[in-house]
Amino acid sequence: MSASASSPAPRAGEPGWIMFGEIAEQPEVLRRVLAEAAPQVRRTAQRIAARRPRFVLLSARGTSDHAALYAKYLFEVELGLPCGLTSMSTVTAYGATPHLEDVLLVSVSQSGGSPDLVATTRAARRAGAITLAVTNNPDSPLAEVAEFHLDILAGPEKALPATKTYTAELLVLYLFVMGLRDDDGAAAAVLPDLVQEVLDRSAEVRALAGRYRFAERMVITSRGYGYPTAKEAALKLMETSYIPALAYSGADLLHGPLAMVDNISPVIAIVTEGRGGEALQPVLDRLRGRGADLVVIGPRVQVKAATGGFGLPTGRLPEALQPVLEIIPLQRLAYEVAVARGQDPDAPRALAKVTETR
Amino acid sequence: MSASASSPAPRAGEPGWIMFGEIAEQPEVLRRVLAEAAPQVRRTAQRIAARRPRFVLLSARGTSDHAALYAKYLFEVELGLPCGLTSMSTVTAYGATPHLEDVLLVSVSQSGGSPDLVATTRAARRAGAITLAVTNNPDSPLAEVAEFHLDILAGPEKALPATKTYTAELLVLYLFVMGLRDDDGAAAAVLPDLVQEVLDRSAEVRALAGRYRFAERMVITSRGYGYPTAKEAALKLMETSYIPALAYSGADLLHGPLAMVDNISPVIAIVTEGRGGEALQPVLDRLRGRGADLVVIGPRVQVKAATGGFGLPTGRLPEALQPVLEIIPLQRLAYEVAVARGQDPDAPRALAKVTETR
Repeated sequence: MSASASSPAPRAGEPGWIMFGEIAEQPEVLRRVLAEAAPQVRRTAQRIAARRPRFVLLSARGTSDHAALYAKYLFEVELGLPCGLTSMSTVTAYGATPHLEDVLLVSVSQSGGSPDLVATTRAARRAGAITLAVTNNPDSPLAEVAEFHLDILAGPEKALPATKTYTAELLVLYLFVMGLRDDDGAAAAVLPDLVQEVLDRSAEVRALAGRYRFAERMVITSRGYGYPTAKEAALKLMETSYIPALAYSGADLLHGPLAMVDNISPVIAIVTEGRGGEALQPVLDRLRGRGADLVVIGPRVQVKAATGGFGLPTGRLPEALQPVLEIIPLQRLAYEVAVARGQDPDAPRALAKVTETR
Repeated sequence: MSASASSPAPRAGEPGWIMFGEIAEQPEVLRRVLAEAAPQVRRTAQRIAARRPRFVLLSARGTSDHAALYAKYLFEVELGLPCGLTSMSTVTAYGATPHLEDVLLVSVSQSGGSPDLVATTRAARRAGAITLAVTNNPDSPLAEVAEFHLDILAGPEKALPATKTYTAELLVLYLFVMGLRDDDGAAAAVLPDLVQEVLDRSAEVRALAGRYRFAERMVITSRGYGYPTAKEAALKLMETSYIPALAYSGADLLHGPLAMVDNISPVIAIVTEGRGGEALQPVLDRLRGRGADLVVIGPRVQVKAATGGFGLPTGRLPEALQPVLEIIPLQRLAYEVAVARGQDPDAPRALAKVTETR
C-alpha cells in the first residue's frame, strides 16, 4: 500500500482508509488471479465450451452488474454469442419459468449471498441452463447452487464501495471468455504493472477531484468496452459522494440526455484506445461544441483535446482489457471527492455490504 | 384535445403546445392501434410463432429502448423466452458476427431511421435471425431491412419528446407478444378510456409539478413491469426540464444509489398493482424510513401511504398493461415542470428528432 509523496495515504481510522487500501491492493489481487485462478478458469471454460452454449444470460446487481455488462461485450465481440442481462424480477416476483436449453447463465456477485441471484440461478439450472457463478466466496450460497464456480480470489473486501472485487471480476471474466475459444489470455499479464503505474500517479487524480468538490451533478459517458466503466464510475461517485452521476452510452446521450449537459454539468468521458473510442468521437465533438466541461480518461492525445483528464498507459493493452485499467483513476477520484466533501467513503449512509434483495 | 377547466390547454404557439397536443391524442391513437393495427399484428405473430424462436433480442434507443425493455418483461414473464437487449456497438463499431439461428430480433424505433439500428438489424438478418421492425413509418429504412414490420399508426410526431409513439409502441408490442401465444389481447380494450380518464385529471398533475419546479435532482424507481415507466419518466423529465433524474429498479437502488436519497432528493415510485408493486414494498419502506419525499404513481392506497402522488384507475387492467397508463401522468408532469421552469418542452436544446448514431 503506497502513495506518492504529494498525496499521502490516509492513516488507519481516517475516513476512507479502508477503501483507499483496497484500491491500492489491486496490482497484488490481479497478480494472484493471473497466477492462481487462471488455470482453473481455463479448465472450467474448456468444460463449458464442450457443452456448446448458444446464448448467454448474465445476472448480477450493483458493481457486479457492471462486470457482467463488460462480459456481455466480450461474449458478443469476441465470440459472436448473443447475450442478455437478466431481469431477475421476472423469475423472483413473477415466477416466470424460462426455457433455457443451450443457454449459459453467468451469475456475478462479490458476496455470492444475494437471495434473488441465488433464486434466479437455481431456477435457470432447473430450466436446463449451464450455470456458472463468479464470486469472491467459494462457500457462498450462489457458488453452491451453480453447476460451475469461479473464485475471484480478491480477499476480504471491507469497504462498502466495491473496488478490488470489481477489477478481479473483470479479469476472471476476461480469462473465462478467452478460455471458451482456447485463448490463454496472456495479453493480461501486463495489467498488474500498468495498474500500479496508474496508482502511483495519485497527485493527478487529487487535482482532478478539486473540480468536482462542489458539483451538483455529473454526466459520465463512453461507448463499447468503456461503457461498463462509465456505469461503475457513476455508481462509485454516487455511493461515496452522493453526487447524482448519470452514465450514458455516447449513442444514448444524443437521444435525449444531451439537453441536460451544459457548462454547469461536468462530463467525464471514458475513451478507449480502439473502436469504442473511435465511435465516441462524434459525441465528444458535440460536447465540445456545447462548451461542456469535458474530462477524459483515456489516451493522452484525447486528454489534450479536452478540458482535462488522466492519460492512461494503454499502448500495450488490447481494447478488451482496458476497462481493468480505466476504472482505477475513477475509483481514486470517488475516494478523493468524498473525502474533500467531508464524507467517509468506507461507510456510505444507508448501505449494507451484502444487499438482500428478493 | 381537451383539458379540464383548472388547467387550460396551451394555445397554438405557446411553449409545449405540440407536446401537450400529442399527449392528448393518445386515447385516439390507442383506439386506432386496437381497431386497425391489431389484425396485422396478430397475423405477423402467428407467422413468427410458426418459426419457433428460442431466444429474443431487442434493439432500440432512447424512448423506444424503454418500450423494448417493456417487451423484455413480456417475453420473459408471459412466454418464458430468454431475452436480451442488444449492445449495438458490438456490431456497428466492433464488427461482431453473431450466430443467430432460432433468434428473434425485434427492433423498435419511432422514425425507423437510425443508422445503427438499421445496421444491427441487417447484420442480424444476415446472421440467420428472424427480424421484426416496430416503427411509426412503414417507408423507413428499418421497415425495409427487416423481414417483418409492424406499423404503430401513431401519426406524425412533431414534438421532440416522444409521447404518443411510446404508448403506441407499448400496445403494439403487447398485442404482438400475446399473439405469439395465440391470445387476442382483448384485455387492452379498456385502455383508451382509462387513458382519457387520467388525462382529464390534469389539475392533479399540475399540483404535483409545483413540487419539482426547483428540484435539482430526482430519483425514479419501480420494479418489474413498472421499471420501463421509471426509465421513460426520467428521460422525459431530463429532456424537457433538464433535471438530472436517475431511474433505478428498486433492487438496484438498494445496491448503492440509496446513499444519494435523502429529504432533498425527491423520489417518484411507480407502483404497479400486482407482483412488481409487491416486490417494491420493502424499497418503499426503506425510503419512508429515510424520510424521503416520496410521490407514488399507482393504486390509491399506495398514494395515501406516501407524501403524495397520482392514483391510477388500475382496477380492471392486468399488470402487464399498466405501463401504458402509468406513463400518462408522468408525460404530463414533464410538460408541466418544463413550462413552470420557463422552458419549451417542444424543442429541448441540443436535440434533433431523428438521432443519427452509428
